[in-house]
Amino acid sequence: MFENARLGQSVDKATFEAREPGLREELLDAQFRLREAGFSVIVVIAGAEGAGKGETVNLLLNWLDARGIATHALGAPTEEERERPEYFRFWRRLPAKGQVGIFFGSWYTRPIAMHSLGQLDDAGFEDDLRRIVEFETMLANEGVLLVKFWLHITKGQQAKRFKKLTANKDTRWRVSKLDWQYHKTYDAFVNSASRAYRRTSSGPAPWHIIEAWDARYRHLTVAETLLAAINARLAEPAPAPAVPEPLPIPAPRNVISALDLSLAVPEPEYRRELERRQLAIGRLARDLRGSGRSVVAVFEGTDAAGKGGSIRRLTQALDARFYEVVSIAAPSDEERARPYLWRFWRRLPQEGHFAIFDRSWYGRVLVERLEGFCDPADWRRAFGEINAFEEQLVDAGSVVLKFWLTTSDGEQLRRFQEREAMGYKHYKITPEDWRNREKWGAYQAAAAEMIERTSTEIAPWTLVEAEDKLHARLKVLRTVESALERATKGRRG
Amino acid sequence: MFENARLGQSVDKATFEAREPGLREELLDAQFRLREAGFSVIVVIAGAEGAGKGETVNLLLNWLDARGIATHALGAPTEEERERPEYFRFWRRLPAKGQVGIFFGSWYTRPIAMHSLGQLDDAGFEDDLRRIVEFETMLANEGVLLVKFWLHITKGQQAKRFKKLTANKDTRWRVSKLDWQYHKTYDAFVNSASRAYRRTSSGPAPWHIIEAWDARYRHLTVAETLLAAINARLAEPAPAPAVPEPLPIPAPRNVISALDLSLAVPEPEYRRELERRQLAIGRLARDLRGSGRSVVAVFEGTDAAGKGGSIRRLTQALDARFYEVVSIAAPSDEERARPYLWRFWRRLPQEGHFAIFDRSWYGRVLVERLEGFCDPADWRRAFGEINAFEEQLVDAGSVVLKFWLTTSDGEQLRRFQEREAMGYKHYKITPEDWRNREKWGAYQAAAAEMIERTSTEIAPWTLVEAEDKLHARLKVLRTVESALERATKGRRG
Repeated sequence: MFENARLGQSVDKATFEAREPGLREELLDAQFRLREAGFSVIVVIAGAEGAGKGETVNLLLNWLDARGIATHALGAPTEEERERPEYFRFWRRLPAKGQVGIFFGSWYTRPIAMHSLGQLDDAGFEDDLRRIVEFETMLANEGVLLVKFWLHITKGQQAKRFKKLTANKDTRWRVSKLDWQYHKTYDAFVNSASRAYRRTSSGPAPWHIIEAWDARYRHLTVAETLLAAINARLAEPAPAPAVPEPLPIPAPRNVISALDLSLAVPEPEYRRELERRQLAIGRLARDLRGSGRSVVAVFEGTDAAGKGGSIRRLTQALDARFYEVVSIAAPSDEERARPYLWRFWRRLPQEGHFAIFDRSWYGRVLVERLEGFCDPADWRRAFGEINAFEEQLVDAGSVVLKFWLTTSDGEQLRRFQEREAMGYKHYKITPEDWRNREKWGAYQAAAAEMIERTSTEIAPWTLVEAEDKLHARLKVLRTVESALERATKGRRG
Repeated sequence: MFENARLGQSVDKATFEAREPGLREELLDAQFRLREAGFSVIVVIAGAEGAGKGETVNLLLNWLDARGIATHALGAPTEEERERPEYFRFWRRLPAKGQVGIFFGSWYTRPIAMHSLGQLDDAGFEDDLRRIVEFETMLANEGVLLVKFWLHITKGQQAKRFKKLTANKDTRWRVSKLDWQYHKTYDAFVNSASRAYRRTSSGPAPWHIIEAWDARYRHLTVAETLLAAINARLAEPAPAPAVPEPLPIPAPRNVISALDLSLAVPEPEYRRELERRQLAIGRLARDLRGSGRSVVAVFEGTDAAGKGGSIRRLTQALDARFYEVVSIAAPSDEERARPYLWRFWRRLPQEGHFAIFDRSWYGRVLVERLEGFCDPADWRRAFGEINAFEEQLVDAGSVVLKFWLTTSDGEQLRRFQEREAMGYKHYKITPEDWRNREKWGAYQAAAAEMIERTSTEIAPWTLVEAEDKLHARLKVLRTVESALERATKGRRG
């Protein structure tokens, strides 16, 4: 794999000095143009200890304008990060459009280190690599320019470098005992790295293997490669505007239309069961604390289907200290400047907490799809990205609950008219609500497709017949209760 | 102090039920109108353990629309918070305009608990209370509506409540050993709380003491008080537009004009000293790690005075993993929706790191003042707020360094023309730069006033004669080096 990085490449001082001023100038120019461009750059610096990763990053920062660059050297995750899926720490550091993020200590560090030290078996390693591919593919699709460098040195070069650093009192601190331990397992490390390379060097996120022993060669090659990548992207013609799609046509029968909307609960029965369920949920929610688990609940549905009322019945059962209701409306400009799922990642709950999403990441395959707010390619790939996202939540111990509330067309109309008649401001029906109604069939069709594509065994949708509000609320509570029961099983005495 | 909360207030069930529906409706209406209003609401819920703080918050959340409210129950700070000033955890949770933030576990919790347990002496307590007053005054001036509730119960009521909760298996978990310890020191707690009340109940941030024993009375009173406060603010007429101010006139001689701009360093001497200083700074920066300290460096100055070049000479000395250059331009919409200093708080460095601000919070008393981007009242109060902010940084172990770089008017003109002639895009001189030049005298006067008002003994300004770039860079490095030496003294063998 690394044969091309053992050729003894080097650059003499005169060549380096002749190229440096022009290269710096070109890098600064590219960076300046990047600011106005609609994409961000992620640079990954990986490789064996002693290959000069730190030096190379320092050099890049010196040559570039430090404004607009953030460097992320990730060590052990903080407790705020440990309470969330592993990729939370990467997501929170994604650069905004126009900016550069340099990661050393990236999503590659833990899997390669653990696999090479025998702490992670092949199957686990493959899982990690698959997740990396999903992540980088998503980034590339979101327009992020990924430039990944693997700085390669041989085992002998590594030893030589560690000895040299240790000999000088100003650099001695840079070589730790751990580094010498890594040196012993060098071959295993290269072996794991090779496999990672094979799996993750893709068209949109290729690795650049750099022979790293000669600093001048390494510096020039990294800088030139980065420059070429940015310039190539800047030179790309603007994509042709997407062709608007026809609205999806509802099938005569789908999972939503097949629901039995006549389901209803009499008021006295509702009151009794409500109280019982809320008590049980409160108790189970307390059991959840300290278990390392959390709850992510998503409420979607047709307008006026009673999402708010159902959420309220759920939060009544919970302690205010342990839940947050996240209402999803238009994204902020910081959110718009980053990949789509960023705004949801930043709201993930800590251990023992509930994050209740009133509308969610599913907006992309519902309103954004139907109103043309994103390209067709964007919502098409969203199904897979959402499944991968929810898999990470579940793997990190979150209970993922997804509710689709639906009424009949006629019942929605009745509730709209009722709300307008009430005249309370907070029940205001907007012109947008009426416009959405006109697309009733298309929304039903899009929702049915969404459910089909994202109702997974680890994060299934619960379809809620919401023609009768009381039935809907109870169904939501019953689902939450049994999910919590499964999640806390074995924890109660 | 709490005499008014020992009157045996109570509300009977019928009265409560008669009032509840209307009150909820009015609260929802107020909350709906708040969304469109240009202010946020912070609710502080404090009081003795067992006074029903959690219950009250749960009720408010039930009555209000959970969308647009976040509840913050702060326990021990996380490690990300411990590495920054104490108020970092409050700043990061400040609600955006239109939103409500409910804090239980607020800035009052630690000082009152520690003082009442004898872990904090009177002088320390007073310091904490002064900081609270500064913080709340700032919030109020930034338009935040502060509603603070103190829920009061007597010692006997507290014991009764703990016993009742313990008797029921569903509520037993709510009473901890610590709660009984607090019960023993109840009198000291009330005593400390009284003093906190006296110091911190101000016009813009008054306390509402609520007799808390009777839940219905407590619930109604808290909700009515909150409603009245929001409605009163909503009813306030829009403030009259601020009268534009005349530009400040430069004094014939000020701290800036008194600088000796002839100071210069010959190139060979510069090279030698640069290398020496950068090596020393690199070494000192490493010593800083693990010391619990960090560096916050601010670069301000006239356009083209060489801020970027000086920052670059500093970062060349540092390891990319341990610094961030924060370039301050227009705020994002999330930043605009929060108090002015929020955007700087969120960029504070963790332990052992440098945050280098290329322009900073001083923008408020420079460009915002002179271009009329804020009301005169806003930049006038900024001096004090900035000093309080920097005091918190220093108290938390940050080394605060502030550089003002200045050239002569003529030198700036020469550099502008030079840059235009070079034609490199990243050196582009914008029409705004030329406009700023026209206000040269006003900028000098504003800067001189800023230096006078914010050059404190804990965070002094370093005025840098920048007519000669080499002199300027060395002066910056010398200042950084000696500050780091002082900060790390005693840590080296």
